[in-house]
Amino acid sequence: MPQLKSTFLSREPLTSEEAKWKRLVKTNYIDPNGVKRDWESAERQTRPTDSPVDGVNIVAFLNKKNGSEILLEKQYRPPIDQVVIELPAGLIDAGETIEQTAVRELKEETGYIGVADKTTGIMYNDPGFCNANFNMVYVQVDMSLPENQNPKPDLEDNEFIECFTLPVSELSSQLQRLESEGYAIDARVGSIAEGIEIAKRLRL
Amino acid sequence: MPQLKSTFLSREPLTSEEAKWKRLVKTNYIDPNGVKRDWESAERQTRPTDSPVDGVNIVAFLNKKNGSEILLEKQYRPPIDQVVIELPAGLIDAGETIEQTAVRELKEETGYIGVADKTTGIMYNDPGFCNANFNMVYVQVDMSLPENQNPKPDLEDNEFIECFTLPVSELSSQLQRLESEGYAIDARVGSIAEGIEIAKRLRL
Repeated sequence: MPQLKSTFLSREPLTSEEAKWKRLVKTNYIDPNGVKRDWESAERQTRPTDSPVDGVNIVAFLNKKNGSEILLEKQYRPPIDQVVIELPAGLIDAGETIEQTAVRELKEETGYIGVADKTTGIMYNDPGFCNANFNMVYVQVDMSLPENQNPKPDLEDNEFIECFTLPVSELSSQLQRLESEGYAIDARVGSIAEGIEIAKRLRL
Repeated sequence: MPQLKSTFLSREPLTSEEAKWKRLVKTNYIDPNGVKRDWESAERQTRPTDSPVDGVNIVAFLNKKNGSEILLEKQYRPPIDQVVIELPAGLIDAGETIEQTAVRELKEETGYIGVADKTTGIMYNDPGFCNANFNMVYVQVDMSLPENQNPKPDLEDNEFIECFTLPVSELSSQLQRLESEGYAIDARVGSIAEGIEIAKRLRL
């Protein structure tokens, strides 16, 4: 199991001139009553100019004999100084389709080779705060294939990711357990788990 | 029906000195290999110093005779210049509990008076980009109560919100319809809808 936890040293204000990856912007608009207003928000600087989205979040199912398991990641996230339970995810490269990004990022981050079989519409992470957005892509990983017997991630030297799986039917209770052990929960994973619980309770 | 659409005028870079509501920060840390690194991210300036979260997202069910309906909002969001389909949500005020925030914000934004009956763990919207986070709070709205017969929102003068409901069982297909009509979809709502579809497909 790879070592995941980094050591937090300090957090300091960042000026706009120093920032290379993120930026603050001000949007000027006229509200429905005709009043001129402005609104502060944050953006990634990395979105390709021809892309309407920053990247993908990947819902990858491993089709094992004992039922469907969802592939998740543990990753240290400096903005919150915690190891987070997340969906595999990544930013789109210029010229890629959404599905190509999903298959490439899944292979790089987890080693698994899968097939994209459904892409959702665009979702916005926190549209009052930032323009960050993504498509959710479902990827089926066929565990009977030789290339998925011994998956080898191809991580960048600043990436420290551990993959693991959870049974889809227990996602909510397993996330609660992980939170109690000190992990942080990404909102996409957490909201999927809530959707599953809502469907169970209403017997949909 | 209230007018929701604002008119976008312009978007411009914002310097750290000018920003009142958001900020950029740099986190310095030592990675698991002992390498010193830094990471840029964004934060809200509004989180109370004694609170571990920015706010709440509210899953409100209207208990009507014909089945459960989830209460949603349409709101213009300047960071993306679109009207977004969102959960009712709000930022925590100093001294409030999470559940108090949820009940207060639901009443202010929608007029409905409800009872908080479940609070999830903390969820992080996009933990590689920002520290923005929330608890998801379930609120039951009893539609047989006199105070819920004619709900009157109490919006601030820069808030333009329209509430509406969708049948929980049709959430995913209805969000697709709304996206095709030009609305943007918030990731919390969209991910709950995906969780419901996953549960249905796996017959959980």
